[in-house]
Amino acid sequence: MMTVLEVDLGLGGRGLADLMDRLAEMGREARLVSLEGVRYVVVHGRVSASDLSGLPVRWVRSTGASYPLVSREAGVCGPVRVGSVEVGGGDLVVMAGPCSVEGRDQIVCTALGVKEAGASILRGGAFKPRTNPYSFQGLGGIGVGLLKEASRVSGLPVVTEVMSPEDVEWMSEEADLLQVGARNMQNFPLLREVGRSHRPVLLKRGMMATVDEWLQAAEYVVSSGNPGVILCERGIRSFDRATRNLLDLSAVPLVKRLSGLPVVVDPSHGTGRRDMVIPMSLAAVAAGADGLIVEVHPSPKDALCDGDQSLDLDEFRDLMGALGALTGALNGRWEVPSWERVAMLA
Amino acid sequence: MMTVLEVDLGLGGRGLADLMDRLAEMGREARLVSLEGVRYVVVHGRVSASDLSGLPVRWVRSTGASYPLVSREAGVCGPVRVGSVEVGGGDLVVMAGPCSVEGRDQIVCTALGVKEAGASILRGGAFKPRTNPYSFQGLGGIGVGLLKEASRVSGLPVVTEVMSPEDVEWMSEEADLLQVGARNMQNFPLLREVGRSHRPVLLKRGMMATVDEWLQAAEYVVSSGNPGVILCERGIRSFDRATRNLLDLSAVPLVKRLSGLPVVVDPSHGTGRRDMVIPMSLAAVAAGADGLIVEVHPSPKDALCDGDQSLDLDEFRDLMGALGALTGALNGRWEVPSWERVAMLA
Amino acid sequence: MMTVLEVDLGLGGRGLADLMDRLAEMGREARLVSLEGVRYVVVHGRVSASDLSGLPVRWVRSTGASYPLVSREAGVCGPVRVGSVEVGGGDLVVMAGPCSVEGRDQIVCTALGVKEAGASILRGGAFKPRTNPYSFQGLGGIGVGLLKEASRVSGLPVVTEVMSPEDVEWMSEEADLLQVGARNMQNFPLLREVGRSHRPVLLKRGMMATVDEWLQAAEYVVSSGNPGVILCERGIRSFDRATRNLLDLSAVPLVKRLSGLPVVVDPSHGTGRRDMVIPMSLAAVAAGADGLIVEVHPSPKDALCDGDQSLDLDEFRDLMGALGALTGALNGRWEVPSWERVAMLA
Amino acid sequence: MMTVLEVDLGLGGRGLADLMDRLAEMGREARLVSLEGVRYVVVHGRVSASDLSGLPVRWVRSTGASYPLVSREAGVCGPVRVGSVEVGGGDLVVMAGPCSVEGRDQIVCTALGVKEAGASILRGGAFKPRTNPYSFQGLGGIGVGLLKEASRVSGLPVVTEVMSPEDVEWMSEEADLLQVGARNMQNFPLLREVGRSHRPVLLKRGMMATVDEWLQAAEYVVSSGNPGVILCERGIRSFDRATRNLLDLSAVPLVKRLSGLPVVVDPSHGTGRRDMVIPMSLAAVAAGADGLIVEVHPSPKDALCDGDQSLDLDEFRDLMGALGALTGALNGRWEVPSWERVAMLA
Repeated sequence: MMTVLEVDLGLGGRGLADLMDRLAEMGREARLVSLEGVRYVVVHGRVSASDLSGLPVRWVRSTGASYPLVSREAGVCGPVRVGSVEVGGGDLVVMAGPCSVEGRDQIVCTALGVKEAGASILRGGAFKPRTNPYSFQGLGGIGVGLLKEASRVSGLPVVTEVMSPEDVEWMSEEADLLQVGARNMQNFPLLREVGRSHRPVLLKRGMMATVDEWLQAAEYVVSSGNPGVILCERGIRSFDRATRNLLDLSAVPLVKRLSGLPVVVDPSHGTGRRDMVIPMSLAAVAAGADGLIVEVHPSPKDALCDGDQSLDLDEFRDLMGALGALTGALNGRWEVPSWERVAMLA
Repeated sequence: MMTVLEVDLGLGGRGLADLMDRLAEMGREARLVSLEGVRYVVVHGRVSASDLSGLPVRWVRSTGASYPLVSREAGVCGPVRVGSVEVGGGDLVVMAGPCSVEGRDQIVCTALGVKEAGASILRGGAFKPRTNPYSFQGLGGIGVGLLKEASRVSGLPVVTEVMSPEDVEWMSEEADLLQVGARNMQNFPLLREVGRSHRPVLLKRGMMATVDEWLQAAEYVVSSGNPGVILCERGIRSFDRATRNLLDLSAVPLVKRLSGLPVVVDPSHGTGRRDMVIPMSLAAVAAGADGLIVEVHPSPKDALCDGDQSLDLDEFRDLMGALGALTGALNGRWEVPSWERVAMLA
Repeated sequence: MMTVLEVDLGLGGRGLADLMDRLAEMGREARLVSLEGVRYVVVHGRVSASDLSGLPVRWVRSTGASYPLVSREAGVCGPVRVGSVEVGGGDLVVMAGPCSVEGRDQIVCTALGVKEAGASILRGGAFKPRTNPYSFQGLGGIGVGLLKEASRVSGLPVVTEVMSPEDVEWMSEEADLLQVGARNMQNFPLLREVGRSHRPVLLKRGMMATVDEWLQAAEYVVSSGNPGVILCERGIRSFDRATRNLLDLSAVPLVKRLSGLPVVVDPSHGTGRRDMVIPMSLAAVAAGADGLIVEVHPSPKDALCDGDQSLDLDEFRDLMGALGALTGALNGRWEVPSWERVAMLA
Repeated sequence: MMTVLEVDLGLGGRGLADLMDRLAEMGREARLVSLEGVRYVVVHGRVSASDLSGLPVRWVRSTGASYPLVSREAGVCGPVRVGSVEVGGGDLVVMAGPCSVEGRDQIVCTALGVKEAGASILRGGAFKPRTNPYSFQGLGGIGVGLLKEASRVSGLPVVTEVMSPEDVEWMSEEADLLQVGARNMQNFPLLREVGRSHRPVLLKRGMMATVDEWLQAAEYVVSSGNPGVILCERGIRSFDRATRNLLDLSAVPLVKRLSGLPVVVDPSHGTGRRDMVIPMSLAAVAAGADGLIVEVHPSPKDALCDGDQSLDLDEFRDLMGALGALTGALNGRWEVPSWERVAMLA
């Protein structure tokens, strides 16, 4: 059991010191977390409002979860703003773009194409985590610059992966959304560093991570000061290699029940097969996902990375059309038939 | 590589003997399979029509799959009729009912309730495969009789599990669809025995079976003489026990691409949680499933088995309503947005 | 919690009826099990000796395990006799022979060869569970006859797999040890049928089975009347296909701690690679296994099944030599350094 | 296919430039790697010595492995020296100590105790990768200092985990062996940074990493300039949670066959249970491991981390005694019965 409380700062600093003293007297470990100017205290164990009478506390909420700040019970985390786009607010958000930024023409062309088809965020990898040291490792800083240019030209905000704690600060100036990749889901120094950034974070699920571990990884980011976490299900590892990974769509309703965080699905890495991207995208939305992140390349057969799972622009337009038909059906707008709102659909 | 050919019986028995002789001369292992009066020959390796000129062969088709008869390339298997219901023909089929038949009132009440809500097949277990020898093992033959009675009262065809080869013959007289459970997916004597039955078979995926192994299990049934196989994805085993099993929805478009068999999804066993049945049902349909099999109990908290994952009748009506909204959107009928027809949706 | 008690039959049948009545009055489900003339009662929940005063009870033992009869706490199961060989009694037992019986010369030659090298039980498959319906399915009844002949010639008892409940009775007359294969570990009708046999059973772990499920499967056999169960670890399924299966040697000390059953290890199926059979055999013995079951073929490259994982007779002699050096080191005899006796080794 | 060649530097720098030019003319990607003063070139694809006649090349070796420098075929990597201890040279090396450094007395007492019992390297965590942000995270820099002091007092070299690339340089001055933890096995910036260090690296296998991915991670380190990699099998994730992880001992003979790197086994994390550490240690050595890394705490019940899997000093002495009996048997010295030398044992 853990407890979160919101500090009432109207009473000034003295009250906060008194509160921390009271918790210390009670023998409770407590951590102060500041999220966008609001102060919260995370306390081990259960604390009730009556234990803290006379102290500057707006509310006190306890949870059995090991990730109190991101838990649904606390109600601290919710929809996340990426540039002018809101993720988790009800409208389906589609992020699209190539696995890797390969050059100016490729990324600008893709940006304009996916925007025209209805995508609202541009994705593109500059620092690539590759299993083999001799594989193409991405264009690095140059790639980030090209992505930034594609963003300016298209007007789309961009998401790209950051791999090293030391790159977080400068990349926060260039990207609108920082991706933490599946292999880094438990890279705790990196989680703490993006937690100190002012940019929102797209946290991919590790290929070996339980849902519980994933939410604890999100708690690392939030407890470091950054409430803007978007979860991304991208497939886990299984015994069957018929698909590259095993897309766990049941994680979508599960994390929405357990936490307040938005969740998007990556059907490209989740399946590794272009011909499965459309059905699994539809399935993800039907399961309640707040968005998708899809690999799109102007010419998949020439891609330096992951061409087998990339859509071309025509296929991406087909996907957007299919999504429109699906979501349009649900009250004439991008309403996702989540487990909570299912009665409304009938 | 394997080859399937259809025998042209118009030429009489002599021609068939000649054909088998020719294959033997070519040094090819060949097996004759009779499906609803049509004779097929399955041959190891590639054979072309020109190798068999002058022999009674309608067509010859080769495939790289290790399950030639159920492969999409052969085109032998397709929609399956269960009583008056067709599975895989375009209309979504919902099978519903309790985990176990517990008594007359329970099963008749459930049958009438699920029928009224729109289900078209009644499910109910009489022989229950239980992990523990001291758990409730089902009502056995008595349960089958009660199920039959519920079928008469409601007019719904019924599906129930058969566990022993020796039970196949008599249960084929009582049930409209024979279920082979996940634990028996590679019980080869049972597969061969249901393959000799005239009843269609619902073949659940083993909890640790690859898609390739699942289709080979289906091939056991079909190569024994029964073309009526419906696949059922019911969740596989993973490292994360947050859900009872891991529902692998990517298997839906995959098996539809690889084979001609219909596929239904079991979100009840697939998640083990009542609150996830609706979102995962919607996701299954969006992924292209031909149907669902859902646990429904008039009073889940009193169920002898699997109450945690059973819907009550109100919840089941909610599910059917949500499915109606989803599928209604797609051209005003129960059309599944499969990977092949996705362009039509746009 | 479950309870096992031994009935004191000296008091005659009346006492037993009184005992069952008392348990029924207490509202306890109870099952009477007869093992080699001794009567046990398995009761749900905890029962103490004082609850049963005046009744014919020798002892009462409770356990938290869901497999009371095979649990270590009950002390009912122990070493198993196969012909004149004792498994689990302290001496390492090596079972060896081909994957499949292919003909008279092959099986007799192998029998004599493995006996000369020190094996004490002959293995050989006649009914083969094959993933594909068009693969070689074994010689069936003819194979069982050949195995019997090899047994007569060599003097070795034999183990072979039984796949169908209807084959159990006649095969019990031919084989000394009945194998239940990994795919049938939860084939409950088969488990009950071998439980009614007078022959001991080699119960392979399912490739998807937890240790807990495996021991419950053993409980099916024992609670049906047969105390002679030998467990066999043969590798489970994992995400890494570098080896055919993942040999779980930690299961060896674990099941020895949890139950009284002997356990042997199959390094051939467990790795699928001939070059790993010797190191993994040594490791299995060091972990405390009571025996090994190893595939040996006079000419592995010609084997109809599993040649890649079979040793030839020279390699088998090398294995036996290596085992001798390992076990000889431990007090000059085949003593296994199990977790319990480890202090003695120092 | 990849090729490794050793440059003959006797011919001076001009020859090296010519060699790289020739490879470029051949259209081959090539990377120059310097390992302890010796220069190697890694080339994509197959190159033969005759392609490079007249150029300064000592030898040319091709391999199908995607990790050419660590492959057995190249013969570049081998035993690793840690302080005065050689790992992989034939003598079994035991690393022991607490999960976390908790204070001066704890670590010095453990160091002296494990040394007296026969350990040759001291382990202790200062930076701890913890799943939950509110768990004890280790003493950090202070812990490294205490470990260094325990090293001075006991004379044992020390191994400790490094989590951040920015910590590698200073920790290389303090520790004799740098551990990369399981969660960081594919933290590529960290792998490259320890690859630029002069200290050897203990590379733990990721809990969901294939053997192939593990060896490619080792290739990241070596191709960055550091040939001193010791692999550590510490258990992978499986569906069965009866043990904390699933210790994959078959990985031991497999990596010894595929690569020249030494491999040690961690039975503490591999099982998570104190009572299984001794049997699994014996099994690891029997499978051919070059060493063990074992958690030992003077008072496991008071440990801040992983007490359930830690031995106390008495138990550790029992383990060392058991290992002595096992290895003493094999020619009277610490000779491991690897798959290659098994004939010698007979």
